[in-house]
Amino acid sequence: MDNFSPCHGGSVFAVLVGASQVLGLVSVVLTGVWMGHYRGGFAWDGSAQEFNLHPLCMVLGLIFLHGDAILVYRVFRNEAKKHVKLLHGTIHLLALIISIIGVVAVFDFHKATKIQDMYSLHSWCGMVTIILFCLQWVLGLLFFLFPVASSWLRAAYLPIHVFCGLSLLVMAIGTSLLGITEKLLFGIMSTYSQFAPEGVLANILGILLVLYGVALVYLITREEYRRISNPEEESLSVHFKNLTESGLPTTP
Amino acid sequence: MDNFSPCHGGSVFAVLVGASQVLGLVSVVLTGVWMGHYRGGFAWDGSAQEFNLHPLCMVLGLIFLHGDAILVYRVFRNEAKKHVKLLHGTIHLLALIISIIGVVAVFDFHKATKIQDMYSLHSWCGMVTIILFCLQWVLGLLFFLFPVASSWLRAAYLPIHVFCGLSLLVMAIGTSLLGITEKLLFGIMSTYSQFAPEGVLANILGILLVLYGVALVYLITREEYRRISNPEEESLSVHFKNLTESGLPTTP
Repeated sequence: MDNFSPCHGGSVFAVLVGASQVLGLVSVVLTGVWMGHYRGGFAWDGSAQEFNLHPLCMVLGLIFLHGDAILVYRVFRNEAKKHVKLLHGTIHLLALIISIIGVVAVFDFHKATKIQDMYSLHSWCGMVTIILFCLQWVLGLLFFLFPVASSWLRAAYLPIHVFCGLSLLVMAIGTSLLGITEKLLFGIMSTYSQFAPEGVLANILGILLVLYGVALVYLITREEYRRISNPEEESLSVHFKNLTESGLPTTP
Repeated sequence: MDNFSPCHGGSVFAVLVGASQVLGLVSVVLTGVWMGHYRGGFAWDGSAQEFNLHPLCMVLGLIFLHGDAILVYRVFRNEAKKHVKLLHGTIHLLALIISIIGVVAVFDFHKATKIQDMYSLHSWCGMVTIILFCLQWVLGLLFFLFPVASSWLRAAYLPIHVFCGLSLLVMAIGTSLLGITEKLLFGIMSTYSQFAPEGVLANILGILLVLYGVALVYLITREEYRRISNPEEESLSVHFKNLTESGLPTTP
């Protein structure tokens, strides 16, 4: 049973975290190369170059930073929980700001070029994802960073928060794949089936995003990588924040 | 804390299972309506009508039956494990056969109409999903239905099997969404942005498939809906099948 020794488990964890970071970073770079090299670069003037900011911002914000904001609970599982919470909320805020810039870019481009909004499956899935992502961030802030909710309510909400966070990451990746397919069929329909380099690059980007998602969800859901509850930290948290309540401590 | 009483938990479970079945069935029916009403029906002659079998078979086999094959472990969590295993494997086999018919239909159509194979992101994701689905079924058969693997190996493989099964369900849903987008952009690109009824119906189908996936993954991953281990059943299983081994019992 040597395969399951803590040492082996630790090295598998490190390799998986490393692989997820490589997958995420390469995805962001490939999106930049696709939009920069094949689609004419970036601008903020209502042109196609403004649209190009949309995929870059969504892959960077709603996928890479969103995923990494979740991952901090596993990577820093031995650090003080309040610091990890703060890091989690801060990276999420950054992800949210970048994602909103990405959404504004595409609406601005549509407005300037008189393209209809919100008719495609990509736009429907994307809008649901970004709205729920905002809601998730606000609820997370109220429940876990500010002591608005009772300890019992926080403990009851925690598994829902974790499930929704992972679901939204998967939704973001799925929506990006739809966006990749849309962009290729609008842009290079005639040469896509001839394995045009732009199409192959975008397909590879799609596969890398899927692999990033699989690595993230695996790292978060494996029992042995979970944060170990620190009774002293929990009791202090309960003591100072919820002195008058008889609730349960939370352990994200 | 009445909200979390077993009775309340049971009714939430029943509602969620019911909702998942409605979502799954309506998705299959909508796919049939889309292909039957808007795309000219079904045939097996290399025509576009043969292609129409592809979405129907994939939604029925690789999504609805695949999901339900997983769900039997929660719906029948108080039945004898060997019967549930057999049901799980049988529904999976049915899902596999129907999915393979769906894949053959699209390759046959491409061959007859001289359309290039395997260039799109949809085809890449789909091929990976169907190959891994076959592999998952064969490994599941060897590990859990036939006593080929040791009890220790079965216990070690079980969480991987569960993770891969759910990942493949999510992959199948994501791939279907890509297929929906492709079909709409190839078929009704000029009217899709005018909210043509066919486009709206296909978008709704995509959203229903996502909701089916969310319901399924939630039902499978919630701790309180897990199958409760029966020590007598486990010990009998270990006694008869692995008399000479000192392994761990498995609890799917």
